[in-house]
Amino acid sequence: MTHAREMLEAYTGRVALDAATLVECIEACFDCDQSCSADADADLGEEDVSPLKRCITMCLNCSDVCAATGRILSRQTEFEPAMAQAALQACVEACRLCAEECEYHAREMNMEHCRVCAESCRRCERACRDTLSALAA
Amino acid sequence: MTHAREMLEAYTGRVALDAATLVECIEACFDCDQSCSADADADLGEEDVSPLKRCITMCLNCSDVCAATGRILSRQTEFEPAMAQAALQACVEACRLCAEECEYHAREMNMEHCRVCAESCRRCERACRDTLSALAA
Amino acid sequence: MTHAREMLEAYTGRVALDAATLVECIEACFDCDQSCSADADADLGEEDVSPLKRCITMCLNCSDVCAATGRILSRQTEFEPAMAQAALQACVEACRLCAEECEYHAREMNMEHCRVCAESCRRCERACRDTLSALAA
Amino acid sequence: MTHAREMLEAYTGRVALDAATLVECIEACFDCDQSCSADADADLGEEDVSPLKRCITMCLNCSDVCAATGRILSRQTEFEPAMAQAALQACVEACRLCAEECEYHAREMNMEHCRVCAESCRRCERACRDTLSALAA
Repeated sequence: MTHAREMLEAYTGRVALDAATLVECIEACFDCDQSCSADADADLGEEDVSPLKRCITMCLNCSDVCAATGRILSRQTEFEPAMAQAALQACVEACRLCAEECEYHAREMNMEHCRVCAESCRRCERACRDTLSALAA
Repeated sequence: MTHAREMLEAYTGRVALDAATLVECIEACFDCDQSCSADADADLGEEDVSPLKRCITMCLNCSDVCAATGRILSRQTEFEPAMAQAALQACVEACRLCAEECEYHAREMNMEHCRVCAESCRRCERACRDTLSALAA
Repeated sequence: MTHAREMLEAYTGRVALDAATLVECIEACFDCDQSCSADADADLGEEDVSPLKRCITMCLNCSDVCAATGRILSRQTEFEPAMAQAALQACVEACRLCAEECEYHAREMNMEHCRVCAESCRRCERACRDTLSALAA
Repeated sequence: MTHAREMLEAYTGRVALDAATLVECIEACFDCDQSCSADADADLGEEDVSPLKRCITMCLNCSDVCAATGRILSRQTEFEPAMAQAALQACVEACRLCAEECEYHAREMNMEHCRVCAESCRRCERACRDTLSALAA
Protein backbone atom coordinates (compact mmCIF):
# COMPACT_ATOMS: atom_id res chain seq x y z
CA MET A 1 0.00 0.00 0.00
CA THR A 2 1.29 3.43 -0.92
CA HIS A 3 -0.14 6.96 -0.83
CA ALA A 4 1.08 7.88 -4.34
CA ARG A 5 -2.36 7.83 -5.97
CA GLU A 6 -3.99 9.81 -3.15
CA MET A 7 -1.19 12.38 -3.24
CA LEU A 8 -1.65 12.88 -6.98
CA GLU A 9 -5.44 13.14 -6.67
CA ALA A 10 -5.02 15.76 -3.95
CA TYR A 11 -2.76 17.88 -6.15
CA THR A 12 -4.72 21.04 -6.96
CA GLY A 13 -2.89 22.00 -10.16
CA ARG A 14 -2.84 20.44 -13.58
CA VAL A 15 -1.15 17.03 -13.83
CA ALA A 16 1.03 16.88 -16.94
CA LEU A 17 0.46 13.20 -17.71
CA ASP A 18 -2.16 10.48 -17.56
CA ALA A 19 -2.60 9.90 -13.82
CA ALA A 20 -2.70 6.09 -13.89
CA THR A 21 0.49 5.90 -15.96
CA LEU A 22 2.21 8.37 -13.67
CA VAL A 23 1.17 6.68 -10.41
CA GLU A 24 2.33 3.28 -11.68
CA CYS A 25 5.68 4.77 -12.68
CA ILE A 26 6.21 6.57 -9.36
CA GLU A 27 5.32 3.44 -7.37
CA ALA A 28 7.53 1.26 -9.58
CA CYS A 29 10.52 3.61 -9.11
CA PHE A 30 10.32 3.63 -5.30
CA ASP A 31 9.67 -0.12 -5.24
CA CYS A 32 12.67 -0.77 -7.51
CA ASP A 33 14.89 1.46 -5.35
CA GLN A 34 13.96 -0.83 -2.43
CA SER A 35 14.26 -4.14 -4.31
CA CYS A 36 17.69 -3.23 -5.67
CA SER A 37 19.00 -2.14 -2.25
CA ALA A 38 17.72 -5.42 -0.82
CA ASP A 39 19.16 -7.49 -3.68
CA ALA A 40 22.63 -5.92 -3.44
CA ASP A 41 22.46 -6.91 0.23
CA ALA A 42 21.18 -10.43 -0.48
CA ASP A 43 24.02 -10.90 -2.97
CA LEU A 44 26.48 -9.79 -0.29
CA GLY A 45 24.90 -12.34 2.07
CA GLU A 46 25.71 -15.26 -0.26
CA GLU A 47 28.67 -17.45 0.63
CA ASP A 48 30.49 -16.82 -2.65
CA VAL A 49 30.22 -13.12 -3.52
CA SER A 50 32.68 -13.18 -6.45
CA PRO A 51 30.24 -14.10 -9.25
CA LEU A 52 27.81 -11.49 -7.91
CA LYS A 53 30.01 -8.40 -8.11
CA ARG A 54 28.43 -7.09 -11.29
CA CYS A 55 24.97 -7.75 -9.86
CA ILE A 56 25.77 -5.72 -6.72
CA THR A 57 27.03 -2.76 -8.75
CA MET A 58 24.05 -2.84 -11.16
CA CYS A 59 21.69 -2.98 -8.15
CA LEU A 60 23.33 -0.05 -6.35
CA ASN A 61 23.30 2.05 -9.53
CA CYS A 62 19.70 1.15 -10.32
CA SER A 63 18.64 1.96 -6.78
CA ASP A 64 20.10 5.46 -7.01
CA VAL A 65 18.64 6.22 -10.45
CA CYS A 66 15.18 4.97 -9.41
CA ALA A 67 15.27 7.14 -6.27
CA ALA A 68 15.97 10.24 -8.35
CA THR A 69 13.41 9.39 -11.04
CA GLY A 70 10.65 8.59 -8.54
CA ARG A 71 11.10 11.98 -6.88
CA ILE A 72 11.29 13.92 -10.14
CA LEU A 73 8.01 12.37 -11.30
CA SER A 74 6.44 13.20 -7.92
CA ARG A 75 6.91 16.91 -8.69
CA GLN A 76 4.10 18.33 -10.81
CA THR A 77 4.57 22.04 -10.07
CA GLU A 78 6.66 23.44 -12.91
CA PHE A 79 6.90 19.98 -14.43
CA GLU A 80 9.57 20.04 -17.15
CA PRO A 81 9.11 17.35 -19.85
CA ALA A 82 12.79 17.53 -20.91
CA MET A 83 13.89 16.73 -17.33
CA ALA A 84 11.38 13.90 -16.95
CA GLN A 85 12.43 12.45 -20.30
CA ALA A 86 16.15 12.48 -19.47
CA ALA A 87 15.58 10.89 -16.06
CA LEU A 88 13.24 8.25 -17.50
CA GLN A 89 15.74 7.32 -20.21
CA ALA A 90 18.47 6.83 -17.60
CA CYS A 91 16.04 4.81 -15.49
CA VAL A 92 15.09 2.52 -18.41
CA GLU A 93 18.79 1.83 -18.95
CA ALA A 94 19.52 1.23 -15.24
CA CYS A 95 16.54 -1.13 -14.90
CA ARG A 96 17.38 -3.02 -18.10
CA LEU A 97 21.02 -3.57 -17.15
CA CYS A 98 20.09 -4.65 -13.63
CA ALA A 99 17.26 -6.93 -14.79
CA GLU A 100 19.52 -8.70 -17.31
CA GLU A 101 22.13 -9.38 -14.66
CA CYS A 102 19.56 -10.51 -12.08
CA GLU A 103 17.79 -12.75 -14.57
CA TYR A 104 21.10 -14.45 -15.31
CA HIS A 105 21.64 -15.31 -11.62
CA ALA A 106 18.02 -16.34 -11.19
CA ARG A 107 18.33 -18.73 -14.15
CA GLU A 108 21.87 -20.06 -13.75
CA MET A 109 22.23 -20.07 -9.98
CA ASN A 110 18.59 -20.39 -9.01
CA MET A 111 18.75 -17.27 -6.89
CA GLU A 112 15.25 -16.37 -5.79
CA HIS A 113 16.21 -12.87 -4.54
CA CYS A 114 17.57 -12.06 -7.99
CA ARG A 115 14.37 -13.39 -9.60
CA VAL A 116 12.23 -11.09 -7.47
CA CYS A 117 14.55 -8.13 -8.07
CA ALA A 118 14.49 -8.71 -11.84
CA GLU A 119 10.69 -8.68 -11.70
CA SER A 120 10.77 -5.32 -9.92
CA CYS A 121 13.30 -3.93 -12.43
CA ARG A 122 11.28 -5.10 -15.43
CA ARG A 123 8.11 -3.57 -13.96
CA CYS A 124 9.96 -0.26 -13.51
CA GLU A 125 11.54 -0.40 -16.97
CA ARG A 126 8.07 -0.97 -18.49
CA ALA A 127 6.49 1.82 -16.42
CA CYS A 128 9.26 4.23 -17.47
CA ARG A 129 8.78 3.32 -21.15
CA ASP A 130 5.02 3.87 -20.82
CA THR A 131 5.63 7.26 -19.23
CA LEU A 132 8.07 8.19 -21.99
CA SER A 133 5.37 7.28 -24.55
CA ALA A 134 2.81 9.37 -22.67
CA LEU A 135 5.27 12.30 -22.62
CA ALA A 136 5.79 12.05 -26.38
CA ALA A 137 2.05 11.92 -27.10
CA MET B 1 2.07 -3.23 -4.58
CA THR B 2 5.69 -3.55 -3.58
CA HIS B 3 8.27 -6.35 -3.67
CA ALA B 4 9.56 -5.70 -0.12
CA ARG B 5 7.99 -8.79 1.45
CA GLU B 6 9.11 -11.08 -1.38
CA MET B 7 12.65 -9.69 -1.22
CA LEU B 8 12.82 -10.35 2.52
CA GLU B 9 11.41 -13.87 2.14
CA ALA B 10 14.02 -14.62 -0.55
CA TYR B 11 16.86 -13.52 1.73
CA THR B 12 18.84 -16.66 2.53
CA GLY B 13 20.44 -15.49 5.78
CA ARG B 14 18.99 -14.78 9.18
CA VAL B 15 16.64 -11.79 9.43
CA ALA B 16 17.39 -9.80 12.56
CA LEU B 17 13.82 -8.72 13.29
CA ASP B 18 10.23 -9.91 13.07
CA ALA B 19 9.59 -10.01 9.31
CA ALA B 20 6.11 -8.45 9.32
CA THR B 21 7.28 -5.51 11.46
CA LEU B 22 10.30 -5.00 9.23
CA VAL B 23 8.38 -5.16 5.94
CA GLU B 24 5.80 -2.66 7.17
CA CYS B 25 8.58 -0.30 8.26
CA ILE B 26 10.49 -0.59 4.98
CA GLU B 27 7.33 0.01 2.94
CA ALA B 28 6.29 2.91 5.17
CA CYS B 29 9.70 4.60 4.78
CA PHE B 30 9.70 4.46 0.97
CA ASP B 31 6.04 5.50 0.85
CA CYS B 32 6.72 8.45 3.16
CA ASP B 33 9.74 9.52 1.08
CA GLN B 34 7.34 9.71 -1.89
CA SER B 35 4.44 11.40 -0.04
CA CYS B 36 6.72 14.07 1.40
CA SER B 37 8.34 14.81 -1.98
CA ALA B 38 4.85 15.10 -3.47
CA ASP B 39 3.55 17.27 -0.62
CA ALA B 40 6.47 19.72 -0.77
CA ASP B 41 5.59 20.03 -4.46
CA ALA B 42 1.85 20.39 -3.82
CA ASP B 43 2.61 23.14 -1.28
CA LEU B 44 4.73 24.90 -3.89
CA GLY B 45 1.79 24.62 -6.31
CA GLU B 46 -0.53 26.58 -4.01
CA GLU B 47 -1.19 30.22 -4.87
CA ASP B 48 0.10 31.54 -1.54
CA VAL B 49 3.28 29.67 -0.64
CA SER B 50 4.26 31.88 2.34
CA PRO B 51 2.30 30.04 5.08
CA LEU B 52 3.62 26.73 3.72
CA LYS B 53 7.35 27.38 4.01
CA ARG B 54 7.77 25.37 7.18
CA CYS B 55 5.72 22.54 5.66
CA ILE B 56 7.94 22.42 2.57
CA THR B 57 11.12 22.24 4.66
CA MET B 58 9.72 19.58 7.01
CA CYS B 59 8.62 17.54 3.95
CA LEU B 60 12.01 17.77 2.22
CA ASN B 61 13.83 16.79 5.42
CA CYS B 62 11.44 13.92 6.14
CA SER B 63 11.77 12.65 2.58
CA ASP B 64 15.57 12.47 2.89
CA VAL B 65 15.54 10.78 6.31
CA CYS B 66 12.93 8.22 5.19
CA ALA B 67 15.00 7.39 2.08
CA ALA B 68 18.06 6.65 4.21
CA THR B 69 16.13 4.68 6.83
CA GLY B 70 14.25 2.57 4.27
CA ARG B 71 17.53 1.53 2.66
CA ILE B 72 19.31 0.81 5.95
CA LEU B 73 16.46 -1.49 7.02
CA SER B 74 16.60 -3.21 3.62
CA ARG B 75 20.13 -4.40 4.44
CA GLN B 76 20.15 -7.59 6.53
CA THR B 77 23.72 -8.76 5.84
CA GLU B 78 25.83 -7.52 8.74
CA PHE B 79 22.78 -5.83 10.22
CA GLU B 80 23.95 -3.49 12.99
CA PRO B 81 21.28 -2.77 15.63
CA ALA B 82 23.01 0.45 16.78
CA MET B 83 22.82 1.85 13.22
CA ALA B 84 19.20 0.82 12.76
CA GLN B 85 18.27 2.35 16.10
CA ALA B 86 19.94 5.71 15.35
CA ALA B 87 18.31 5.92 11.91
CA LEU B 88 14.89 4.94 13.27
CA GLN B 89 15.09 7.56 16.02
CA ALA B 90 15.89 10.26 13.46
CA CYS B 91 13.05 8.99 11.29
CA VAL B 92 10.52 9.08 14.14
CA GLU B 93 11.49 12.71 14.76
CA ALA B 94 11.34 13.67 11.05
CA CYS B 95 7.92 12.03 10.62
CA ARG B 96 6.52 13.54 13.83
CA LEU B 97 7.64 17.08 12.92
CA CYS B 98 6.32 16.75 9.37
CA ALA B 99 3.02 15.17 10.44
CA GLU B 100 2.35 17.95 12.99
CA GLU B 101 2.93 20.63 10.37
CA CYS B 102 0.85 18.82 7.72
CA GLU B 103 -2.00 18.18 10.17
CA TYR B 104 -2.12 21.90 10.95
CA HIS B 105 -2.57 22.79 7.26
CA ALA B 106 -5.07 19.98 6.75
CA ARG B 107 -7.17 21.26 9.68
CA GLU B 108 -6.80 25.03 9.33
CA MET B 109 -6.58 25.41 5.56
CA ASN B 110 -8.44 22.29 4.52
CA MET B 111 -5.48 21.09 2.45
CA GLU B 112 -6.19 17.57 1.30
CA HIS B 113 -2.59 16.93 0.12
CA CYS B 114 -1.34 17.78 3.61
CA ARG B 115 -3.96 15.45 5.13
CA VAL B 116 -2.77 12.53 2.99
CA CYS B 117 0.89 13.34 3.67
CA ALA B 118 0.27 13.50 7.43
CA GLU B 119 -1.36 10.06 7.23
CA SER B 120 1.74 8.69 5.48
CA CYS B 121 4.05 10.35 8.06
CA ARG B 122 2.05 8.99 11.01
CA ARG B 123 2.10 5.50 9.49
CA CYS B 124 5.88 5.72 9.11
CA GLU B 125 6.37 7.18 12.62
CA ARG B 126 4.33 4.27 14.05
CA ALA B 127 6.20 1.66 11.99
CA CYS B 128 9.55 3.09 13.13
CA ARG B 129 8.45 3.03 16.78
CA ASP B 130 7.31 -0.59 16.38
CA THR B 131 10.67 -1.51 14.85
CA LEU B 132 12.50 0.26 17.67
CA SER B 133 10.47 -1.81 20.16
CA ALA B 134 11.28 -5.00 18.26
CA LEU B 135 14.98 -4.06 18.30
CA ALA B 136 14.91 -3.53 22.07
CA ALA B 137 13.13 -6.85 22.71
CA MET C 1 38.49 19.70 0.53
CA THR C 2 37.22 16.28 -0.47
CA HIS C 3 38.65 12.76 -0.36
CA ALA C 4 37.50 11.86 -3.91
CA ARG C 5 40.97 11.92 -5.45
CA GLU C 6 42.55 9.94 -2.61
CA MET C 7 39.76 7.36 -2.77
CA LEU C 8 40.29 6.88 -6.49
CA GLU C 9 44.07 6.64 -6.10
CA ALA C 10 43.59 3.98 -3.40
CA TYR C 11 41.40 1.88 -5.68
CA THR C 12 43.36 -1.28 -6.46
CA GLY C 13 41.60 -2.22 -9.69
CA ARG C 14 41.62 -0.63 -13.11
CA VAL C 15 39.96 2.78 -13.38
CA ALA C 16 37.86 2.95 -16.53
CA LEU C 17 38.44 6.62 -17.26
CA ASP C 18 41.06 9.34 -17.05
CA ALA C 19 41.42 9.90 -13.30
CA ALA C 20 41.52 13.71 -13.32
CA THR C 21 38.37 13.91 -15.48
CA LEU C 22 36.60 11.43 -13.25
CA VAL C 23 37.57 13.10 -9.96
CA GLU C 24 36.44 16.51 -11.21
CA CYS C 25 33.10 15.02 -12.32
CA ILE C 26 32.51 13.20 -9.03
CA GLU C 27 33.34 16.32 -7.00
CA ALA C 28 31.19 18.50 -9.25
CA CYS C 29 28.20 16.16 -8.86
CA PHE C 30 28.31 16.12 -5.05
CA ASP C 31 28.95 19.87 -4.95
CA CYS C 32 26.00 20.53 -7.29
CA ASP C 33 23.73 18.28 -5.20
CA GLN C 34 24.58 20.54 -2.24
CA SER C 35 24.33 23.88 -4.11
CA CYS C 36 20.95 22.98 -5.56
CA SER C 37 19.55 21.87 -2.19
CA ALA C 38 20.79 25.14 -0.71
CA ASP C 39 19.42 27.23 -3.58
CA ALA C 40 15.95 25.66 -3.44
CA ASP C 41 16.02 26.62 0.24
CA ALA C 42 17.33 30.15 -0.41
CA ASP C 43 14.54 30.64 -2.97
CA LEU C 44 12.02 29.51 -0.36
CA GLY C 45 13.52 32.03 2.05
CA GLU C 46 12.77 34.97 -0.28
CA GLU C 47 9.80 37.16 0.55
CA ASP C 48 8.05 36.54 -2.77
CA VAL C 49 8.35 32.86 -3.65
CA SER C 50 5.97 32.91 -6.65
CA PRO C 51 8.49 33.86 -9.37
CA LEU C 52 10.88 31.25 -7.98
CA LYS C 53 8.67 28.17 -8.26
CA ARG C 54 10.34 26.89 -11.41
CA CYS C 55 13.76 27.54 -9.89
CA ILE C 56 12.89 25.49 -6.79
CA THR C 57 11.68 22.53 -8.87
CA MET C 58 14.69 22.63 -11.19
CA CYS C 59 17.01 22.75 -8.15
CA LEU C 60 15.32 19.81 -6.39
CA ASN C 61 15.42 17.73 -9.57
CA CYS C 62 19.05 18.63 -10.28
CA SER C 63 20.03 17.80 -6.72
CA ASP C 64 18.55 14.29 -7.01
CA VAL C 65 20.10 13.56 -10.41
CA CYS C 66 23.53 14.81 -9.29
CA ALA C 67 23.37 12.62 -6.16
CA ALA C 68 22.71 9.52 -8.27
CA THR C 69 25.34 10.39 -10.88
CA GLY C 70 28.04 11.18 -8.32
CA ARG C 71 27.54 7.80 -6.70
CA ILE C 72 27.44 5.86 -9.98
CA LEU C 73 30.75 7.42 -11.04
CA SER C 74 32.24 6.57 -7.62
CA ARG C 75 31.79 2.87 -8.43
CA GLN C 76 34.66 1.46 -10.50
CA THR C 77 34.17 -2.26 -9.79
CA GLU C 78 32.15 -3.65 -12.69
CA PHE C 79 31.94 -0.17 -14.20
CA GLU C 80 29.34 -0.23 -16.97
CA PRO C 81 29.84 2.48 -19.64
CA ALA C 82 26.20 2.30 -20.78
CA MET C 83 25.02 3.10 -17.25
CA ALA C 84 27.51 5.92 -16.78
CA GLN C 85 26.54 7.39 -20.14
CA ALA C 86 22.81 7.35 -19.40
CA ALA C 87 23.30 8.93 -15.97
CA LEU C 88 25.67 11.57 -17.34
CA GLN C 89 23.23 12.52 -20.11
CA ALA C 90 20.44 12.99 -17.56
CA CYS C 91 22.82 15.01 -15.39
CA VAL C 92 23.83 17.30 -18.26
CA GLU C 93 20.15 18.01 -18.89
CA ALA C 94 19.33 18.58 -15.20
CA CYS C 95 22.30 20.94 -14.78
CA ARG C 96 21.54 22.85 -17.99
CA LEU C 97 17.87 23.38 -17.10
CA CYS C 98 18.73 24.45 -13.56
CA ALA C 99 21.58 26.73 -14.64
CA GLU C 100 19.39 28.51 -17.20
CA GLU C 101 16.71 29.20 -14.61
CA CYS C 102 19.23 30.29 -11.96
CA GLU C 103 21.06 32.56 -14.41
CA TYR C 104 17.76 34.27 -15.21
CA HIS C 105 17.14 35.09 -11.54
CA ALA C 106 20.75 36.12 -11.02
CA ARG C 107 20.52 38.54 -13.97
CA GLU C 108 16.96 39.86 -13.65
CA MET C 109 16.51 39.85 -9.87
CA ASN C 110 20.12 40.16 -8.82
CA MET C 111 19.90 37.02 -6.72
CA GLU C 112 23.38 36.12 -5.53
CA HIS C 113 22.39 32.61 -4.34
CA CYS C 114 21.11 31.83 -7.83
CA ARG C 115 24.34 33.17 -9.33
CA VAL C 116 26.44 30.84 -7.18
CA CYS C 117 24.14 27.90 -7.86
CA ALA C 118 24.28 28.50 -11.62
CA GLU C 119 28.08 28.47 -11.39
CA SER C 120 27.97 25.11 -9.63
CA CYS C 121 25.49 23.72 -12.21
CA ARG C 122 27.58 24.91 -15.15
CA ARG C 123 30.70 23.37 -13.60
CA CYS C 124 28.86 20.06 -13.22
CA GLU C 125 27.35 20.23 -16.73
CA ARG C 126 30.85 20.80 -18.16
CA ALA C 127 32.39 18.01 -16.07
CA CYS C 128 29.65 15.59 -17.20
CA ARG C 129 30.20 16.54 -20.86
CA ASP C 130 33.95 15.98 -20.43
CA THR C 131 33.31 12.58 -18.88
CA LEU C 132 30.93 11.67 -21.72
CA SER C 133 33.69 12.58 -24.19
CA ALA C 134 36.20 10.48 -22.26
CA LEU C 135 33.75 7.56 -22.29
CA ALA C 136 33.32 7.84 -26.05
CA ALA C 137 37.07 7.99 -26.67
CA MET D 1 36.52 22.93 -4.13
CA THR D 2 32.86 23.26 -3.18
CA HIS D 3 30.30 26.08 -3.31
CA ALA D 4 28.93 25.41 0.20
CA ARG D 5 30.44 28.50 1.83
CA GLU D 6 29.40 30.80 -1.02
CA MET D 7 25.87 29.40 -0.95
CA LEU D 8 25.60 30.05 2.79
CA GLU D 9 27.02 33.58 2.47
CA ALA D 10 24.48 34.31 -0.27
CA TYR D 11 21.58 33.22 1.92
CA THR D 12 19.57 36.36 2.70
CA GLY D 13 17.90 35.15 5.89
CA ARG D 14 19.28 34.43 9.33
CA VAL D 15 21.61 31.45 9.62
CA ALA D 16 20.80 29.43 12.72
CA LEU D 17 24.36 28.37 13.52
CA ASP D 18 27.93 29.55 13.38
CA ALA D 19 28.68 29.68 9.64
CA ALA D 20 32.15 28.10 9.73
CA THR D 21 30.93 25.15 11.83
CA LEU D 22 27.97 24.67 9.52
CA VAL D 23 29.96 24.84 6.28
CA GLU D 24 32.52 22.34 7.56
CA CYS D 25 29.72 19.96 8.57
CA ILE D 26 27.88 20.26 5.25
CA GLU D 27 31.09 19.68 3.28
CA ALA D 28 32.08 16.77 5.51
CA CYS D 29 28.68 15.09 5.03
CA PHE D 30 28.77 15.25 1.23
CA ASP D 31 32.42 14.20 1.18
CA CYS D 32 31.70 11.24 3.47
CA ASP D 33 28.72 10.20 1.31
CA GLN D 34 31.19 10.01 -1.60
CA SER D 35 34.06 8.32 0.30
CA CYS D 36 31.74 5.64 1.67
CA SER D 37 30.21 4.91 -1.75
CA ALA D 38 33.73 4.62 -3.17
CA ASP D 39 34.95 2.45 -0.30
CA ALA D 40 32.04 0.00 -0.53
CA ASP D 41 33.00 -0.30 -4.20
CA ALA D 42 36.74 -0.66 -3.47
CA ASP D 43 35.92 -3.42 -0.96
CA LEU D 44 33.86 -5.16 -3.63
CA GLY D 45 36.84 -4.88 -5.98
CA GLU D 46 39.12 -6.85 -3.63
CA GLU D 47 39.81 -10.47 -4.49
CA ASP D 48 38.42 -11.83 -1.21
CA VAL D 49 35.22 -9.96 -0.37
CA SER D 50 34.19 -12.18 2.57
CA PRO D 51 36.06 -10.37 5.36
CA LEU D 52 34.77 -7.04 3.99
CA LYS D 53 31.04 -7.70 4.18
CA ARG D 54 30.54 -5.69 7.36
CA CYS D 55 32.64 -2.86 5.91
CA ILE D 56 30.48 -2.73 2.76
CA THR D 57 27.26 -2.57 4.78
CA MET D 58 28.62 0.10 7.17
CA CYS D 59 29.76 2.14 4.16
CA LEU D 60 26.43 1.92 2.35
CA ASN D 61 24.54 2.89 5.51
CA CYS D 62 26.90 5.75 6.30
CA SER D 63 26.65 7.04 2.74
CA ASP D 64 22.85 7.24 2.96
CA VAL D 65 22.80 8.90 6.39
CA CYS D 66 25.43 11.48 5.34
CA ALA D 67 23.45 12.31 2.19
CA ALA D 68 20.33 13.04 4.25
CA THR D 69 22.21 15.00 6.93
CA GLY D 70 24.14 17.12 4.42
CA ARG D 71 20.90 18.17 2.75
CA ILE D 72 19.05 18.87 6.00
CA LEU D 73 21.86 21.16 7.15
CA SER D 74 21.81 22.89 3.75
CA ARG D 75 18.26 24.10 4.50
CA GLN D 76 18.19 27.26 6.61
CA THR D 77 14.66 28.43 5.84
CA GLU D 78 12.47 27.17 8.68
CA PHE D 79 15.49 25.47 10.22
CA GLU D 80 14.25 23.13 12.95
CA PRO D 81 16.85 22.38 15.67
CA ALA D 82 15.09 19.16 16.74
CA MET D 83 15.35 17.80 13.19
CA ALA D 84 19.00 18.82 12.81
CA GLN D 85 19.84 17.27 16.17
CA ALA D 86 18.20 13.92 15.35
CA ALA D 87 19.90 13.73 11.95
CA LEU D 88 23.28 14.69 13.40
CA GLN D 89 23.03 12.06 16.14
CA ALA D 90 22.28 9.37 13.54
CA CYS D 91 25.18 10.66 11.43
CA VAL D 92 27.63 10.54 14.35
CA GLU D 93 26.66 6.92 14.92
CA ALA D 94 26.89 5.98 11.22
CA CYS D 95 30.31 7.62 10.89
CA ARG D 96 31.65 6.09 14.12
CA LEU D 97 30.56 2.55 13.15
CA CYS D 98 31.95 2.91 9.64
CA ALA D 99 35.23 4.48 10.80
CA GLU D 100 35.83 1.69 13.34
CA GLU D 101 35.33 -0.98 10.70
CA CYS D 102 37.46 0.83 8.12
CA GLU D 103 40.25 1.46 10.65
CA TYR D 104 40.34 -2.25 11.39
CA HIS D 105 40.89 -3.13 7.71
CA ALA D 106 43.41 -0.32 7.28
CA ARG D 107 45.40 -1.61 10.26
CA GLU D 108 45.05 -5.38 9.86
CA MET D 109 44.93 -5.72 6.09
CA ASN D 110 46.81 -2.60 5.12
CA MET D 111 43.92 -1.40 2.97
CA GLU D 112 44.62 2.13 1.85
CA HIS D 113 41.05 2.78 0.58
CA CYS D 114 39.73 1.93 4.04
CA ARG D 115 42.31 4.24 5.65
CA VAL D 116 41.17 7.17 3.48
CA CYS D 117 37.51 6.35 4.08
CA ALA D 118 38.05 6.18 7.86
CA GLU D 119 39.66 9.62 7.71
CA SER D 120 36.61 10.99 5.90
CA CYS D 121 34.23 9.32 8.41
CA ARG D 122 36.17 10.67 11.43
CA ARG D 123 36.17 14.15 9.93
CA CYS D 124 32.39 13.93 9.45
CA GLU D 125 31.82 12.47 12.92
CA ARG D 126 33.83 15.35 14.44
CA ALA D 127 32.01 17.98 12.34
CA CYS D 128 28.63 16.55 13.39
CA ARG D 129 29.64 16.60 17.07
CA ASP D 130 30.77 20.22 16.72
CA THR D 131 27.47 21.13 15.10
CA LEU D 132 25.56 19.35 17.88
CA SER D 133 27.53 21.40 20.42
CA ALA D 134 26.77 24.61 18.51
CA LEU D 135 23.08 23.68 18.45
CA ALA D 136 23.05 23.11 22.21
CA ALA D 137 24.80 26.43 22.93
